[in-house]
Amino acid sequence: MSKPLILVSNDDGISSRGIRVLVELMKEIGEVIVVAPDSPQSGMGHAITVGNTLRLDKTDIFGDVPAYKCSGTPADCVKLAKHHVLTSSKPDLVVSGINHGGNTSISVLYSGTMSAAIEGAIEDLPAVGFSLCDYASEADFSHTGEYVKKIASEVLYKGLPKGVALNVNIPPKRNENIKGIKVCRQARAKWEEQFDVRRDPTGRKYFWMAGNFVNFDRGEDNDEWAIANNYISIVPCQYDLTAHHGISFLNDQWEL
Amino acid sequence: MSKPLILVSNDDGISSRGIRVLVELMKEIGEVIVVAPDSPQSGMGHAITVGNTLRLDKTDIFGDVPAYKCSGTPADCVKLAKHHVLTSSKPDLVVSGINHGGNTSISVLYSGTMSAAIEGAIEDLPAVGFSLCDYASEADFSHTGEYVKKIASEVLYKGLPKGVALNVNIPPKRNENIKGIKVCRQARAKWEEQFDVRRDPTGRKYFWMAGNFVNFDRGEDNDEWAIANNYISIVPCQYDLTAHHGISFLNDQWEL
Repeated sequence: MSKPLILVSNDDGISSRGIRVLVELMKEIGEVIVVAPDSPQSGMGHAITVGNTLRLDKTDIFGDVPAYKCSGTPADCVKLAKHHVLTSSKPDLVVSGINHGGNTSISVLYSGTMSAAIEGAIEDLPAVGFSLCDYASEADFSHTGEYVKKIASEVLYKGLPKGVALNVNIPPKRNENIKGIKVCRQARAKWEEQFDVRRDPTGRKYFWMAGNFVNFDRGEDNDEWAIANNYISIVPCQYDLTAHHGISFLNDQWEL
Repeated sequence: MSKPLILVSNDDGISSRGIRVLVELMKEIGEVIVVAPDSPQSGMGHAITVGNTLRLDKTDIFGDVPAYKCSGTPADCVKLAKHHVLTSSKPDLVVSGINHGGNTSISVLYSGTMSAAIEGAIEDLPAVGFSLCDYASEADFSHTGEYVKKIASEVLYKGLPKGVALNVNIPPKRNENIKGIKVCRQARAKWEEQFDVRRDPTGRKYFWMAGNFVNFDRGEDNDEWAIANNYISIVPCQYDLTAHHGISFLNDQWEL
């Protein structure tokens, strides 16, 4: 039986440490091809490049693993991979990451890591985004390997429901071992932004976004709870945004 | 009773025709303030500006309507409006658009117009994104006014469920009058991308994204059907992406 074909992308850019870790792990379970942004794309959400050109260049950054760097967003990378790079074969799995920093709860919306995975799901490909809840550039990835391989293998061999991509978050390396894997819902939480107001050298104002994460969710079945309690969280995500309870609300309450 | 405070944003940029139409309409029902991107942001999805600075400058482009142009994305505009511009008052309504081009079905994911509205919902503000299904720069907006005002007024006076923003699409101006408003679900459809491969003046390859829209949905309760049949579509959208059916799938089928 031939090895599964695994497409790897990310949003921190092709030269980040997290994608190097992910490529090494995926080589153990499949044949790997990389199409990833040539520069960091954090916070890009599900952006795509319309009204502008895209570059795609081969790179030997991963040795004998075929790899391409792209000037676009993570979603662009998956689109280009499918329609330009992998024209004669379809990947068996799309993985994105490992992100430097968590993508739990509301962060899934802003996450370039997850946009690559969701783009996979739109293309009917099994897809997973992996994030390590540690923003440090020297973050320790050593505890992620066994879980990343296990989850990727489960997706390869058991599949996913149509239109679903997985958002996997991994707790930072702590003294205690990881307790296991929890399938979760997205926590109700948000960022309370603050903007630092500063002056540039000419005296003109500019802003830096800052903020605090606020968790409103007291449940124990959500991704924030899992990470806080040293479990890996898996949230199955869909790209159908329809709020079905909103349909009945509007039909009942409004006069249209 | 004081007039409701209405925050207007968009993704085509502050100088586009669609936002001018929306500002004029909102002035009829409330007090208006504009915070919008200083340049086109189409396809930005739910991108935010992290790791980079933001500019925000007052402009008199709308006469006596207070207005600010922002160097960031539509989501940045709503965040800056809430946390920096409107620090002493909370908008009663956030509206985004009117977009030059449709944001039905899967396009909601890539839509900067809807990201401004969803950002409103995250901030617990009633919010609506309006899009006209006509990409032409000279598109006729004359049939949109009565419906845009009606929907904005319904949201102001009847409210929306928590965490829900509305995705409103308006058919292009046709010979026949609009038949009415339909509350819909997001259609199952996608873009089949193609990439035009070209050469720059130095001979280096570059790509333009192109593609065809493919609708897999045969239902009559979705937004594509509504637009094709000359109805305005309203899809209530949520930012909780959890695929709850995926949770039971993983718990039943996987060995974790």
